[in-house]
Amino acid sequence: MTSKSTQYEIGLIGLAVMGENLALNIAGKGFAIAVYNRTVDKVAHFVNSRGQGLPVGGAASMAEFTAMLTKPRKIILMVKAGQPVDDMLQALVPHLDPGDIIIDGGNSHFEDTRRRCRECKEQGFHFMGLGVSGGEEGALKGPSLMPGGEESIYKQVEPILLSIAAKVPEGVCCQYVGPDGAGHYVKIVHNGIEYGDMQLISEAYHLMRDALGLSADDLQQVFDGWNQGVLESFLIEITAGILARKDAETGKPVVDIIVDQAGQKGTGKWTIQSALDLGVPTPTITQAVFARYMSAYKKQRMEAANILTGPDRRYAGNKGEFIKAIHDALYASKICSYAQGFDLLAAAGKAYHWDLNYGDIALLWRGGCIIRARFLAKIEESFRHNCDLPNLMLAPFFRQALIAAQANWRFAVKTGKELGIPTPAFSASLDYYDSYRAALLPANLLQAQRDYFGAHTYERLDKPGVFHYDWY
Amino acid sequence: MTSKSTQYEIGLIGLAVMGENLALNIAGKGFAIAVYNRTVDKVAHFVNSRGQGLPVGGAASMAEFTAMLTKPRKIILMVKAGQPVDDMLQALVPHLDPGDIIIDGGNSHFEDTRRRCRECKEQGFHFMGLGVSGGEEGALKGPSLMPGGEESIYKQVEPILLSIAAKVPEGVCCQYVGPDGAGHYVKIVHNGIEYGDMQLISEAYHLMRDALGLSADDLQQVFDGWNQGVLESFLIEITAGILARKDAETGKPVVDIIVDQAGQKGTGKWTIQSALDLGVPTPTITQAVFARYMSAYKKQRMEAANILTGPDRRYAGNKGEFIKAIHDALYASKICSYAQGFDLLAAAGKAYHWDLNYGDIALLWRGGCIIRARFLAKIEESFRHNCDLPNLMLAPFFRQALIAAQANWRFAVKTGKELGIPTPAFSASLDYYDSYRAALLPANLLQAQRDYFGAHTYERLDKPGVFHYDWY
Repeated sequence: MTSKSTQYEIGLIGLAVMGENLALNIAGKGFAIAVYNRTVDKVAHFVNSRGQGLPVGGAASMAEFTAMLTKPRKIILMVKAGQPVDDMLQALVPHLDPGDIIIDGGNSHFEDTRRRCRECKEQGFHFMGLGVSGGEEGALKGPSLMPGGEESIYKQVEPILLSIAAKVPEGVCCQYVGPDGAGHYVKIVHNGIEYGDMQLISEAYHLMRDALGLSADDLQQVFDGWNQGVLESFLIEITAGILARKDAETGKPVVDIIVDQAGQKGTGKWTIQSALDLGVPTPTITQAVFARYMSAYKKQRMEAANILTGPDRRYAGNKGEFIKAIHDALYASKICSYAQGFDLLAAAGKAYHWDLNYGDIALLWRGGCIIRARFLAKIEESFRHNCDLPNLMLAPFFRQALIAAQANWRFAVKTGKELGIPTPAFSASLDYYDSYRAALLPANLLQAQRDYFGAHTYERLDKPGVFHYDWY
Repeated sequence: MTSKSTQYEIGLIGLAVMGENLALNIAGKGFAIAVYNRTVDKVAHFVNSRGQGLPVGGAASMAEFTAMLTKPRKIILMVKAGQPVDDMLQALVPHLDPGDIIIDGGNSHFEDTRRRCRECKEQGFHFMGLGVSGGEEGALKGPSLMPGGEESIYKQVEPILLSIAAKVPEGVCCQYVGPDGAGHYVKIVHNGIEYGDMQLISEAYHLMRDALGLSADDLQQVFDGWNQGVLESFLIEITAGILARKDAETGKPVVDIIVDQAGQKGTGKWTIQSALDLGVPTPTITQAVFARYMSAYKKQRMEAANILTGPDRRYAGNKGEFIKAIHDALYASKICSYAQGFDLLAAAGKAYHWDLNYGDIALLWRGGCIIRARFLAKIEESFRHNCDLPNLMLAPFFRQALIAAQANWRFAVKTGKELGIPTPAFSASLDYYDSYRAALLPANLLQAQRDYFGAHTYERLDKPGVFHYDWY
């Protein structure tokens, strides 16, 4: 281990892969970092292997760890979200001095972060919730960082965070987000959007695989091509990469031997639960989460496939035109999904008194993270141009994109319906677009029903006031 | 007020409309009932007006109220869900004796009911959660009752509940549901399904109003006709009734002057939050909740209508055929919505160790409540025939109905997409059907993406085990 001193600028607790990689990223930028892990063996191993030659100091106890840090201490927690964060805080607090700063870099729920900010403040410490995205590779080479907490406290750690974050032509993917849980909230919405993006790509793949019978090699070509255009993004790029891979054992494309069951760790669910609480329609992201749930019904689906019949899945028309239609459906649906995510951010910002800057948030996601995409530069521009945009779909660039895509979008969705190939997120996006641009929805009938059986009253189009009709 | 005695068989606290009507229903069946209300003025007023001539006794205090009841006391709470129930319990408990029974007839969250069952048991009392549906009219004339708690305790109140519940040709709409929160859970799912039904009807109305230009009078004829067939139900019946009503002031159909903004009280949201927690796809019900949220964006929608263009909304084809297609889309979507609701009940039953009887539950909803419908007799039959049915769509009757409806269903949905008229719940239902009957979804690609950026591993189609590919 490196010799112990009190000269470590920052500390990190939790040496799982994300914690290790973040520590290496920090040390690689020249910041002396002290590390600690509950299972202490990991510490020495890390310092003597991956940490070799870098300014990384290992601590064998919490007391030693905190003694190594310059004051006010800056300590990043990279432990499992939930109870482990509270447990670690409780163990850490006796070793801290007033003014010390604790930064939770895990996937914590924003409500927990809000509570911990309050609790730490009462004890004289500062707590920050730091959203970190980009997976293991991002943590090591430059993640997207979404810091929330007191702005003056953020300023004390800003040099380190800016230095380790992802860089894109438009700027650095780290910017102060807002008070208490704001950073973790933005990370939750990031993850919800990530669910949406992955599902939309899967639906495009599904249509081409089943309706056109394209092979993995054919599909790789299509996605490679798409990655040169408006859809250019990390997820499209790795999709092409995945489709190109062959299984060493069977020689088949790897994608064709993987079981169609997708797992999830719950952060997509948090996005929807918050949307439900805040009254924000987020159908695309929701359908993405339900599609993962449905994928888990593998056994039932295999049995139902023989019982519930449907149309012939093959598309008989022009292949190239259909592929273009699917491209446009994916692009337009993606715009709707992001529109829902930013609408949710606006509602949360209002509810929790965060002064969110949507342009900054788009920039944060421009690089480093899973949803990184060229597309986000256009979102940033749109919000920089008009920070009061009621919905992303109304920004000139996206409005034009939607209008240009819509004939193909409708064609792809309706063809899926004709062929019996499900496109839940494509459909939900198109219904979102058509609902949002409907001056008159059918909710007048629905409200009349509510007034009929529950005397819930209604408003009138022709004059103000609240009315009840005597239906019985 | 009636003379005070200790001979009252049952008590009721909370004289808002639902409480009053339930008390009158009970008294009308010959059971002597004592009533109490926090605002005591209401008690005497009720007893001397609507309670006149019935075995209703009013109490001026909690002590007087509890003294009027035969032991073990049976007390129905009809107070606002949430904190008021806990407050009332706290006020009530000092006046109770061990073995007394408290029955919460409000719209409580099932988790609250589970907690209250535990807390009351610790104090020596019995707590029951009673789902009550049917609105004010149902409470008075025969509601649907969904009782949960200890079965032996239910037996003590069963005679009263059976006597006041709705009756249908197939039986009484009251049956013991299961332990602790089971009754209130079934009520929550009832409400979620109610949201789905109302939205599906609204989408049918929307297509006919906007694509065919049908007037309220025309539409009334259509819904009247539908109420003679497989869609026969309370909600279709009142839809026809609503469409027939004219505004006295303007002479216009009432439905045409009501603002297209629908309120909600949160129970639909509870259904989805539980579905998210239990991993059950409930897209139809979810789209119904989001449609209400979207209806609240009235101002934004009116502005967006001028900015986000779309196709001509008029349908140029055969009117009668399109109406038939919409009918079939509504029927098939409704089957999917109920399939989701019963799937959710199955997951909750498993998670909370309730031994739910789906046939009984279908019967409970057959009459008295908002979703009452001829259709529910078929659901009851299906589950009586096979209580292990993995999904309602697989029951012979519903499988045949879906297969018979599907060409028209697909046609209605795709036409909505072509015309730019949103049908979020129709679409979500069709996507649910097509996803459930898909032996191979595209989730293999999605899981490959997860393994690529997060090393989340995958399973293989050709052999057991857990695998990770070295993508980088």
